[in-house]
Amino acid sequence: MNAVNHSDVIKIGLLGCGTVGRSLVDLLAERESELIRTTGMRFQIVMIGVRTISRVTLPADSQIEVTTDTAALVKNDNIDIVIELIGGVEPARDLVLAALNAGKPVITANKELLAKSGSELYQTASANGVDVLFEASAAGAIPILRPLRESLLGEDIKRVMGIVNGTTNYILTQMSDEGQNYAEALSQAQQLGYAESDPTNDIEGYDAGAKAAIMASLAFGNYVVASDVTHEGISNITKEDITFADELGYVIKMLALAEKFADGEIGVRVFPALVDKKHPLASVRGSYNAVFLEGEASSELMFYGRGAGGLPTASAVLGDLVDAALNLRRGMHRPVIHGEPASIKPASQMRSSFFFVIDAKNSPGVLSAIAGYFSDQNISIKAMEQEPLAGDDTQARMVFLTEEALDENADAVIKLCEASDYVSQVKSFFRVLR
Amino acid sequence: MNAVNHSDVIKIGLLGCGTVGRSLVDLLAERESELIRTTGMRFQIVMIGVRTISRVTLPADSQIEVTTDTAALVKNDNIDIVIELIGGVEPARDLVLAALNAGKPVITANKELLAKSGSELYQTASANGVDVLFEASAAGAIPILRPLRESLLGEDIKRVMGIVNGTTNYILTQMSDEGQNYAEALSQAQQLGYAESDPTNDIEGYDAGAKAAIMASLAFGNYVVASDVTHEGISNITKEDITFADELGYVIKMLALAEKFADGEIGVRVFPALVDKKHPLASVRGSYNAVFLEGEASSELMFYGRGAGGLPTASAVLGDLVDAALNLRRGMHRPVIHGEPASIKPASQMRSSFFFVIDAKNSPGVLSAIAGYFSDQNISIKAMEQEPLAGDDTQARMVFLTEEALDENADAVIKLCEASDYVSQVKSFFRVLR
Repeated sequence: MNAVNHSDVIKIGLLGCGTVGRSLVDLLAERESELIRTTGMRFQIVMIGVRTISRVTLPADSQIEVTTDTAALVKNDNIDIVIELIGGVEPARDLVLAALNAGKPVITANKELLAKSGSELYQTASANGVDVLFEASAAGAIPILRPLRESLLGEDIKRVMGIVNGTTNYILTQMSDEGQNYAEALSQAQQLGYAESDPTNDIEGYDAGAKAAIMASLAFGNYVVASDVTHEGISNITKEDITFADELGYVIKMLALAEKFADGEIGVRVFPALVDKKHPLASVRGSYNAVFLEGEASSELMFYGRGAGGLPTASAVLGDLVDAALNLRRGMHRPVIHGEPASIKPASQMRSSFFFVIDAKNSPGVLSAIAGYFSDQNISIKAMEQEPLAGDDTQARMVFLTEEALDENADAVIKLCEASDYVSQVKSFFRVLR
Repeated sequence: MNAVNHSDVIKIGLLGCGTVGRSLVDLLAERESELIRTTGMRFQIVMIGVRTISRVTLPADSQIEVTTDTAALVKNDNIDIVIELIGGVEPARDLVLAALNAGKPVITANKELLAKSGSELYQTASANGVDVLFEASAAGAIPILRPLRESLLGEDIKRVMGIVNGTTNYILTQMSDEGQNYAEALSQAQQLGYAESDPTNDIEGYDAGAKAAIMASLAFGNYVVASDVTHEGISNITKEDITFADELGYVIKMLALAEKFADGEIGVRVFPALVDKKHPLASVRGSYNAVFLEGEASSELMFYGRGAGGLPTASAVLGDLVDAALNLRRGMHRPVIHGEPASIKPASQMRSSFFFVIDAKNSPGVLSAIAGYFSDQNISIKAMEQEPLAGDDTQARMVFLTEEALDENADAVIKLCEASDYVSQVKSFFRVLR
């Protein structure tokens, strides 16, 4: 055991004291002796900056000063490291930049801030020779950014695929495992606190998109910002979609997919996809998250865990805190990404396999006509099934699984179907994870 | 992009040039410009030490010196970092200690060495102020040791569960998915190069045990050595066992399980276990590996990937190499475990749920007698099923699933069954992962 140097105290200024902040206060208290043993340092939150002091509930014997003067906190000479848990872009951005410019390492869990202004933060940290660490921002408790930044520094990563939004994964899991429809599953997620009363940010993929931008930046070494990410939500998914997928051996998952193409362009999109039940991502259920990497040398890697929640997120913040403190004492900081802004491939130019369920007239020649829409668009059909629609044998239900093709060509097939006299509806349409 | 300083070359001495070593030579060549971009350093293997020079096949234009004088290599002033890929305890141990004592950071993928002499290596590295890094030793390409050592330094880890042997996982997956029996699956694994001609080290759990010892040491902060690990192999597993498990919603997996108990004792064991099909470890198929962690704050985490293979293992070595080189240039090294040797709990005192399939006389009173063996041993039965044995209705097949109980009590039930006039055989017995 190391000799404990009681004078080596790391003084922390905490911005924001919601669920994660409050969990961090408790976690640091609980792990104090173990942290002294493993790091030789005592971590002490000396000040908490909030908007409304009366909302902060600390243990009765707490010595922590609570202030609304956050601008003073980030420059306070008595503070070694700043932890930002406010969320949102402003005032978090101003405060983080001020802290970095005051020479203080910053730890943040703020995905919106990083996905919008990450480059500015990295550059400011680098110019001041301090760390900006943000493990909790991308996948909650899952240590994914550190492996990306360190273990995989020599790796040529081709794809990053994540289930990085617990709300949508909970809803899709309930629809899949419990046979609920979308509205029922959303309502249950809201009751359990997994979804907000206005769930747009989660359901439409904005939350996952911000996280994907952060991961893509680290994986590929070029900055990707939130506005580079294209989104498709899950609110139109039906119980029938889940059943169609299930019968073919797939589950539907809300995926964040970041790819590096041979031409050097990067594509990042969030969309519901068919995932083979045997793929490890298919086993990620409920509010859990996972990130799947495909690298040239390391082959496939997956990281799984809690993507949200006070204590899991606080544990990721604590990992960064230890890292920042050790670096601070050694007078060093971690290198950040050296790259330029990514060159973004338009979504229409990205490729996938596709899954179509098409209801059409049940008569000779119709299948041939619809198959023609695919061949017109240079899409090869991998598998096809057709049967009369239950209860209406004038209609047939056709299921098509295609080879890889351009997104814009699949869109064109949908438009051809919609304009066709044979087709009554495109009942279901999804991309398939390869 | 960083200015490239062509004079900053990291000179590497490589010990051993088998599959992993050869992949590393190629990987470093292929990633050279990217590594210069991200680290500012050029990584150059200047010397390879082997037993038989004629076995080393390098690219025709290679400038690498090949030598049999490994003792001189590890002390050579022209070498900055030593990579040990010989395997086995000696002469690897002597060479690694000599390199560390010569002030050179060492990277090793040698699980036997670490699981036997890890403590000696860590202490020697620490005394010389250099790194000994060994990411590739525990789970191949999966970056598990760095998260354990860094991201989770503030975490109270309770259990580490791993599928860390690709040979046994391949065999069990083939038995499960393809209906092969043990001999067929082993033979196929041998043909594909997943199993050695003498597969004992994998099949009986020694390989997994060494990896579990390394992970337990880092997870719990106390040294665990290979001889602390208890083992049970998979060679007795039958197709019927797989079917029994399947019918109850389980798959059989070879698990390495390391636990920290409330009394501070640590238990590490390798055994085939029933894993719920919905558990993420159940989705780890074929030659893939995964490590599942349960922590107080981070909750559940899983890391999945390739556990073996030349290129994946070389990618893990490369991650360590970059880390060691950055540390070397900063004049620092990573702290290693500060703990004492672990206090080991005897396997008989560890607890599990158990699964029994017992064939017995099909007559009144027999079930009651057998249930009595469990209650005699303080084992509560959670679920029980009984039906006449197909083709022989004088016999009944009874399936018992128990609550958690001590291993020694489950052993006693087996002995009671074997001594019983009612019981013809204990057909199947497994621990169940909770």
